[in-house]
Amino acid sequence: MIHFVTTSDGKYREVANLLHGYGIKIERERLPVPEIQADTSEEVVRYSLDVLAGLTANDVLVDDSGFYVNALNGFPGVFSAYTYRTIGTRGLLRLLEGAQDRSSRFETVMGLRLGKEVRVFKGECHGVVAAEPHGAEGFGFDPIFVPDGEVRTFAEMPITEKNAISHRGNAAKKVAEFLQGR
Amino acid sequence: MIHFVTTSDGKYREVANLLHGYGIKIERERLPVPEIQADTSEEVVRYSLDVLAGLTANDVLVDDSGFYVNALNGFPGVFSAYTYRTIGTRGLLRLLEGAQDRSSRFETVMGLRLGKEVRVFKGECHGVVAAEPHGAEGFGFDPIFVPDGEVRTFAEMPITEKNAISHRGNAAKKVAEFLQGR
Repeated sequence: MIHFVTTSDGKYREVANLLHGYGIKIERERLPVPEIQADTSEEVVRYSLDVLAGLTANDVLVDDSGFYVNALNGFPGVFSAYTYRTIGTRGLLRLLEGAQDRSSRFETVMGLRLGKEVRVFKGECHGVVAAEPHGAEGFGFDPIFVPDGEVRTFAEMPITEKNAISHRGNAAKKVAEFLQGR
Repeated sequence: MIHFVTTSDGKYREVANLLHGYGIKIERERLPVPEIQADTSEEVVRYSLDVLAGLTANDVLVDDSGFYVNALNGFPGVFSAYTYRTIGTRGLLRLLEGAQDRSSRFETVMGLRLGKEVRVFKGECHGVVAAEPHGAEGFGFDPIFVPDGEVRTFAEMPITEKNAISHRGNAAKKVAEFLQGR
């Protein structure tokens, strides 16, 4: 059994749901995971897995995700959760007022530690920042992100539709394929 | 000899200058310090000191600082360096357009590890966010911060004047008093 270490209910729901779709069951583990200040989620995840090795003998999964806005030099990136808690979607929209380029992406990096083996999987979803928030599903910046090929925001999609194209869905698929191939 | 562990030239200059004024000499150590994602600089500093204990036998000093804007729920706070690198002073000013409350503060937490002993010292400087950037001294958000009782921004002050009232100056004073009292 793999233990998903997270303090985010939204992440847990999505990841449990996603992996369940591949026949993989996970359990939640509420250990505090030290997340480092780094420029990429991959660095955050590798560091968390290193530290977790000293805290638990269980096989663990961690997820670090971020929202990257090109016109803002990638802001808020790895610090998306904090940015959401403080300035929110309204703040982000304000930073983009008048911007021509509204392209952005979500990224999820999932890290797996199975015994001594460490694996890292990355999923992305490209799109644009909406002019205004729409929808109430999902969490975080979902209400202002419209994936490429869509007219709805992530927050306007049922979770199964979002999962089929999302950064987290793509990363979970790679995790599942890896686990199934063992 | 205390080793100041930092990757920031600006911080090193200020802290060396400050402590030198109290007759305390420091050396720079360019170890990578893991900085955790936390809500307060004190947590960041305590974690860094813990990790440094395993990396060096030297007595070490670390500094974590942040800029807290009240109307933005404390944003950018602990993540000020990253926020400065991405959206800059222009982004921060934009987030405050139309805000009545422009109050803010700088905070520095300095952490000292002397052998097994750990001490943490906090300095603050309260003020307001200027309407526009002014000055070229200092670094980071200095050009948009006007300390209480002043009309100039930090970036318009010679370093000695800034140090006399700054968050970092206040923290360094506490460090110096502690060291002199031993």
